[in-house]
Amino acid sequence: MREHFHDDLQSLSDVLVEMTRLVGSAIARATMALLDADLALAESVISADEQVDALQLEFEERSLALLALQQPVATDLRVIVTGLRMSADLERMGDLARHIAKVARMRHPRSAIPAELRATVLEMGQVAERIVAKTGSVIAGRDISAAAELETDDDAMDALHRRLFSAILSENWRHGIEPAVDVTLCGRYYERFADHAVSVARRVVFLVTGKRVAS
Amino acid sequence: MREHFHDDLQSLSDVLVEMTRLVGSAIARATMALLDADLALAESVISADEQVDALQLEFEERSLALLALQQPVATDLRVIVTGLRMSADLERMGDLARHIAKVARMRHPRSAIPAELRATVLEMGQVAERIVAKTGSVIAGRDISAAAELETDDDAMDALHRRLFSAILSENWRHGIEPAVDVTLCGRYYERFADHAVSVARRVVFLVTGKRVAS
Repeated sequence: MREHFHDDLQSLSDVLVEMTRLVGSAIARATMALLDADLALAESVISADEQVDALQLEFEERSLALLALQQPVATDLRVIVTGLRMSADLERMGDLARHIAKVARMRHPRSAIPAELRATVLEMGQVAERIVAKTGSVIAGRDISAAAELETDDDAMDALHRRLFSAILSENWRHGIEPAVDVTLCGRYYERFADHAVSVARRVVFLVTGKRVAS
Repeated sequence: MREHFHDDLQSLSDVLVEMTRLVGSAIARATMALLDADLALAESVISADEQVDALQLEFEERSLALLALQQPVATDLRVIVTGLRMSADLERMGDLARHIAKVARMRHPRSAIPAELRATVLEMGQVAERIVAKTGSVIAGRDISAAAELETDDDAMDALHRRLFSAILSENWRHGIEPAVDVTLCGRYYERFADHAVSVARRVVFLVTGKRVAS
């Protein structure tokens, strides 16, 4: 019975890892759609978000079934309850990638991102992708050292986000209001995406070590 | 034992209602701080958010204890697990009110909101406050009809949000980039605040009726 239960826990964890894979792919493709003004790619990101939502519901239903049937206590209980919170974060990350794809779609056929900010936004996309890949490793391997790296990646994201604002608010900004609004919103979406991923990793650390990482 | 358990469930529900009260007060005061450029009020909103975070942690710990000790199944289990998700939404609403207060603080002594948008932002604050008050009633009274009203309020919020964007993007906008960025972010914060509140109410509806409200 207990062995069966631990298989169930493992397969719940696999769902979360699969969610990190999907939202990692979504943010990478959303970034490409945004920078290249690629409408088909943007549409595919928008429609693929359904899969993430479906996995989140599946995670919830399977967790509830496990709680009801197995009546876990102590660590096992905490693993499932924490997993529920993590699945909600991952679902939200999917939404944020979809929001970026929607900005790309709205401004098609031009890119929402002015030329001089392309490198910064590209890097935000890459950092986001790297963060969620590491979050997947942390979940899959309970790898605490990777979780520590994430804090550095998150600082990098914050620095990139500040760089965006400096550009928008500088005297040299020549693109007017609409691109400033687009860049403001996209910047916020990337930053929130990273925050959620880091929050997921911190929850794993808390499960493994019992220590909350200061945020 | 079961009676005791239902007292425990009731007191968990009371924590959620108290959270709606705190975040309702926070969004009302953040709006006032934003419109009146009131630094002291902004600071008080920012520091009061700790209380919401503490209640959320308390909710989590008490839920885990209940799950472990009482081993609830069926509806009771679903009530607790859904409550965990609702407490996370409410905690996030506190963060969003704090973000608005931070914009107020950053632009002090001037107001971040240009004069012609004050009425719209005031209304967004009022709709947000109304939504969260109704969400509190829905939790406290399992009042499904109030939940239906929330969908209308949420539409009102979306319309106000669009009105903000129209103003920023119109040819008559004379305030330059920085206020456009501030208004964009604040608009987003109000809209997310309302979304989370509506999502909490929808979860109550799902608990009571077993039917998911389409989003």
